[in-house]
Amino acid sequence: MRSRYDSPDEAEAAFYRAFEHNDLAAMQTVWDEAEDVVCVHPMGSALRGIRAVLDSWRAILEAGVRMRFGIEPIQVSRVNGLSIHIVKEHIVVPGAKPVAPMTATNVYRETAAGWRMILHHASPSPSPSTAADAGRMLH
Amino acid sequence: MRSRYDSPDEAEAAFYRAFEHNDLAAMQTVWDEAEDVVCVHPMGSALRGIRAVLDSWRAILEAGVRMRFGIEPIQVSRVNGLSIHIVKEHIVVPGAKPVAPMTATNVYRETAAGWRMILHHASPSPSPSTAADAGRMLH
Repeated sequence: MRSRYDSPDEAEAAFYRAFEHNDLAAMQTVWDEAEDVVCVHPMGSALRGIRAVLDSWRAILEAGVRMRFGIEPIQVSRVNGLSIHIVKEHIVVPGAKPVAPMTATNVYRETAAGWRMILHHASPSPSPSTAADAGRMLH
Repeated sequence: MRSRYDSPDEAEAAFYRAFEHNDLAAMQTVWDEAEDVVCVHPMGSALRGIRAVLDSWRAILEAGVRMRFGIEPIQVSRVNGLSIHIVKEHIVVPGAKPVAPMTATNVYRETAAGWRMILHHASPSPSPSTAADAGRMLH
């Protein structure tokens, strides 16, 4: 298992791969082991510190729901040692009804151990059907 | 009206002051006039570019709902020229029922015109009563 990511994009790919495979060990290699990391799951409070963040991922990944992510980049902002990605997550749960997409802010930091995630803030977006309905209402 | 903010904290204070006062002109001085700014309102899609972002604030602020914000800092991460703030927004609408708190990721960038906001991503948090109920269910 890779545990060093040489770019924020590699760390982001590893994050969604770990999520898709419900792989907690891989998820652990993505996050910076620090007290200042923060994770906000959809409709959730901000969890702060590596222990609280990994505990939340353990609960989610052990639930074992298989999801597939299509990641649509919205914006990337980079400065020295930090990379902020805003993405739209198109989610498919095989065998289940369509799931609303999510919007996520993901932040990565360059560390001695390569690029690591320090923030994941995800929130529900309007589903395409809702957006289409809203569009029809406007015309 | 101040239009130059010498620190990210000053820009953040101006952001919430503009929001509380439904002051679009002040809100305009907070955001960086750039194509890479992004705003995600609660349950909304990511709006990208200063025009789309300010159009959304015009609609919100012209609606004229008076809100008061109590801002609880969760985490601040700073590197050269960029400051990432994760906050819990405790919101009071005078005369209305309690409103659920929001969690927001706010990012500020140092520009030639001082510190400006480049990202506001807000999403609903569990309300205190819901969190208390959840706590009771776990015991």
